[in-house]
Amino acid sequence: MNAIAEFTIIPIGVGVSLSKYVAVCEQILEESGLSYELHANGTNLEGEWDEVMSAIKTCHEKLHEMGVPRISTQIKIGTRTDRAQKMTDKIASVREKL
Amino acid sequence: MNAIAEFTIIPIGVGVSLSKYVAVCEQILEESGLSYELHANGTNLEGEWDEVMSAIKTCHEKLHEMGVPRISTQIKIGTRTDRAQKMTDKIASVREKL
Amino acid sequence: MNAIAEFTIIPIGVGVSLSKYVAVCEQILEESGLSYELHANGTNLEGEWDEVMSAIKTCHEKLHEMGVPRISTQIKIGTRTDRAQKMTDKIASVREKL
Amino acid sequence: MNAIAEFTIIPIGVGVSLSKYVAVCEQILEESGLSYELHANGTNLEGEWDEVMSAIKTCHEKLHEMGVPRISTQIKIGTRTDRAQKMTDKIASVREKL
Repeated sequence: MNAIAEFTIIPIGVGVSLSKYVAVCEQILEESGLSYELHANGTNLEGEWDEVMSAIKTCHEKLHEMGVPRISTQIKIGTRTDRAQKMTDKIASVREKL
Repeated sequence: MNAIAEFTIIPIGVGVSLSKYVAVCEQILEESGLSYELHANGTNLEGEWDEVMSAIKTCHEKLHEMGVPRISTQIKIGTRTDRAQKMTDKIASVREKL
Repeated sequence: MNAIAEFTIIPIGVGVSLSKYVAVCEQILEESGLSYELHANGTNLEGEWDEVMSAIKTCHEKLHEMGVPRISTQIKIGTRTDRAQKMTDKIASVREKL
Repeated sequence: MNAIAEFTIIPIGVGVSLSKYVAVCEQILEESGLSYELHANGTNLEGEWDEVMSAIKTCHEKLHEMGVPRISTQIKIGTRTDRAQKMTDKIASVREKL
């Protein structure tokens, strides 16, 4: 089951600057082989449901290993059976209606 | 890795009434053996990360089998290493500060 | 425009225990006169769109006054024109399908 | 109070294709004068809290006027008092740690 997803990971209890931790997650995504794209409020990614979820879990595990005591993550995940769709299709689909 | 989570599943393309589909997910959670609680904007659940995520995936699979062409789900998932915490602890923790 | 909403407020940069801040928000909701209910992953509330959003904004303002340097909040907000609906109706609607 | 936000609007009860409605929201954002950017899972925007929330409310109102009976929207909104930050800064901040 293919999925288009987004996640925003919030390390808690490590101060106000979080970009170091987000960078570690980006590295995990890079190594996962999944398509992904960082944006101002999270990271979009796409692929098989299990691979997407596994990458997010690895982020939690890695950040805890780095000493982050608490993590809160928000995920959006979409699946569809009517047609194949990529992240780029979603944006193109809106743009052609503008 | 234990997790406290919430998910809100939105079946798309099946009209305006979604409660039938949410009920199917509640049934899946019931069978999962996980602790869960339906509320007005989603369902809270807790357990091992993989079991929590597996239950949500099963909801997507089951709803697609029922003919839902598109599903958008939002998940919040929290993990912590500083101490064990249950869903009921989180509420109690706020209430004792009121 | 009536709305059923949920919000989860995450104070960042104030350590790992957040319940003190959530309790302040509960107090703000109590004073707002809106219907609300704390659950394990957020707070549900309902009322006029502007009043709901105003209460959430007041939480941000108050927490910043208390010295929280950074706040990340997630909101779900639903509106419908097909029929009037209360938070309790949503849960009842699922339960009758179980 | 300046805010960096994201919203994902899901029209319910109007079939499986939602891009037409997202395009209407993009138009509303264009007219609002706020900085915004569409991505694969939502739209990022930044500005004064009230202006950001007003734009999202206008999307709900406009979509209901177009006949959408039910709308579910997810918002992330972040504020900070420790320093001024733009959406582009958040991405740059992660990238320099990679």
